[in-house]
Amino acid sequence: MSERRYDPTHGEWVTFATHRQDRTYKPSAAACPLCPTVPGHEPTEIPREHFDVVVFDNRFPSLSTDPPEPSVAGTDLVPVEPAYGHCEVVVFTDDHDATLASVGVARVTLLVETWARRVADLGADPGVRYVLPFENKGEAVGVTLHHPHGQIYAYPDVPPRPARELAAGRRHHERTGHCVFCDVVAAEAGGAREVVAGEHFVAAVPPWARFPYEVDIWSREHVPSLPELSADARADLARVLAKVLATCDAWFGFSTSYLLGIHAAPTDGTDRDVAHLHLEICPPHRGGGKLKYLAGSETFGGAFLTDVAPEVAAARLREAAGRAVVPA
Amino acid sequence: MSERRYDPTHGEWVTFATHRQDRTYKPSAAACPLCPTVPGHEPTEIPREHFDVVVFDNRFPSLSTDPPEPSVAGTDLVPVEPAYGHCEVVVFTDDHDATLASVGVARVTLLVETWARRVADLGADPGVRYVLPFENKGEAVGVTLHHPHGQIYAYPDVPPRPARELAAGRRHHERTGHCVFCDVVAAEAGGAREVVAGEHFVAAVPPWARFPYEVDIWSREHVPSLPELSADARADLARVLAKVLATCDAWFGFSTSYLLGIHAAPTDGTDRDVAHLHLEICPPHRGGGKLKYLAGSETFGGAFLTDVAPEVAAARLREAAGRAVVPA
Repeated sequence: MSERRYDPTHGEWVTFATHRQDRTYKPSAAACPLCPTVPGHEPTEIPREHFDVVVFDNRFPSLSTDPPEPSVAGTDLVPVEPAYGHCEVVVFTDDHDATLASVGVARVTLLVETWARRVADLGADPGVRYVLPFENKGEAVGVTLHHPHGQIYAYPDVPPRPARELAAGRRHHERTGHCVFCDVVAAEAGGAREVVAGEHFVAAVPPWARFPYEVDIWSREHVPSLPELSADARADLARVLAKVLATCDAWFGFSTSYLLGIHAAPTDGTDRDVAHLHLEICPPHRGGGKLKYLAGSETFGGAFLTDVAPEVAAARLREAAGRAVVPA
Repeated sequence: MSERRYDPTHGEWVTFATHRQDRTYKPSAAACPLCPTVPGHEPTEIPREHFDVVVFDNRFPSLSTDPPEPSVAGTDLVPVEPAYGHCEVVVFTDDHDATLASVGVARVTLLVETWARRVADLGADPGVRYVLPFENKGEAVGVTLHHPHGQIYAYPDVPPRPARELAAGRRHHERTGHCVFCDVVAAEAGGAREVVAGEHFVAAVPPWARFPYEVDIWSREHVPSLPELSADARADLARVLAKVLATCDAWFGFSTSYLLGIHAAPTDGTDRDVAHLHLEICPPHRGGGKLKYLAGSETFGGAFLTDVAPEVAAARLREAAGRAVVPA
């Protein structure tokens, strides 16, 4: 079963993939499917003894290029369709115990280049409208494979949150004539909530942070998506990203869990005037070993509550940035 | 600090309440602030030796009727305003170890009546536009006070998710002339996904369930909100709700964690033709001791992934309903 069903009460599609119940769940390090294949041992997903960055199809995909016919008939009220799309796994180190904060700027640059290439390749599929690279890190956010890795989902439509972002950007553009993210960069760069400043990218706790230590990374220029970045800009994004992640680890004092996602233009060529490349990094930690949960107000209201002032979070992170070590 | 800031990149308000960092965190049962006050011991929040249902203002509110001036100046790009509203705590038993599934239908009926009265009272505040009763149950969803209790938030606007729901309902109404929930009830009542059938309410796993064992409870009639329910309908809602919660416990084999929220009409009198009273009950469990987490696709895409077919979940729950014991 790999199908999408339309929720007419919210105007959103939900994807069902029941084979994912059987996905690999917290294997021991010895049984890690993302480690290199070592002679004399069972082959892993990756038939190499060493590697830098490897991309392959998720063995337990939510979306696939050959989805089965839906298990139930759609209706006018609740349309149902095969869950077309791509789900890829991006392994960016052969070291089971590394993190994106520790692999070094050169490797993160290679990862940024890989993301850009996959966005271009997957976006060229006429069945795809939006490509979302993301990383879920740490058991606190539900990770079931500990070997450091990210994922890329290529959706057959523009998913709900990017769609709302593009709609909000469109309204701002109609009202002001500007890209809203360009205005945000003008307001935030060099300000009280800035955390890391690069030449092409700036990282800050947004004034409306949904997670206490959320850090967003915005392109200073109006660049719609990763493939349009210059080589210089990709290297700068890698430096800023590695620095932000090392800074989070330095502030919390442990290897921080986080959700990381990249928002950009749809791959069908629409909305490029209002789509502005940016990353969102959301650690679930709120300090003192406590986690932020999405509970009643967030789940049923969609109304986020935060208990750390963004200015305070940014000052703490800036202080930690001075101690954060980023390998080259 | 108790303020709302506008996120112009998503068109949504985020609430900041920094004093909530100091909120009571997992106290021992002996130090429970929601237990009755016992002679010879420190007074708790509730100055009674016994009680049925008690409602009082949250000591650590996100929204308040007397919020301080904002800590930062708003701008045209990011408006900031005091976080006006109400946050109430609803304690529905003096038994520290009870649950909403165990307190009995009579008590749940009293709770439903209490919700209806609080919605009417809080909704009469001209500074309030939407009242959301909810319950977060269990450490798996981040609960910091174990004594069974719910909460009620009264917001100064219609929060993002109900706003999207009302907008989707408006589109469906314009297209078909019907309330979308009335159409959902017509399609789902007595069908493969029904779990519990009452006279006035029907509980089912929605065909678009976002959580593997999500159960929604819909009013069969087009009732916009709790205060309009007849006494019979309130008692029926209590029976159906208690049965659903006992059914979840019977299926999982333990006291189930869940998020429970009630969606209804805004309290400012708008959208009553498309607002249709319903409850959403979302256990985070996906079976085998595993939890569903909202990770990259949900957080950055707003695109939910589920790995249990709603028809299968409903069949399992119906079977468990036969074993579920609901005290009178």
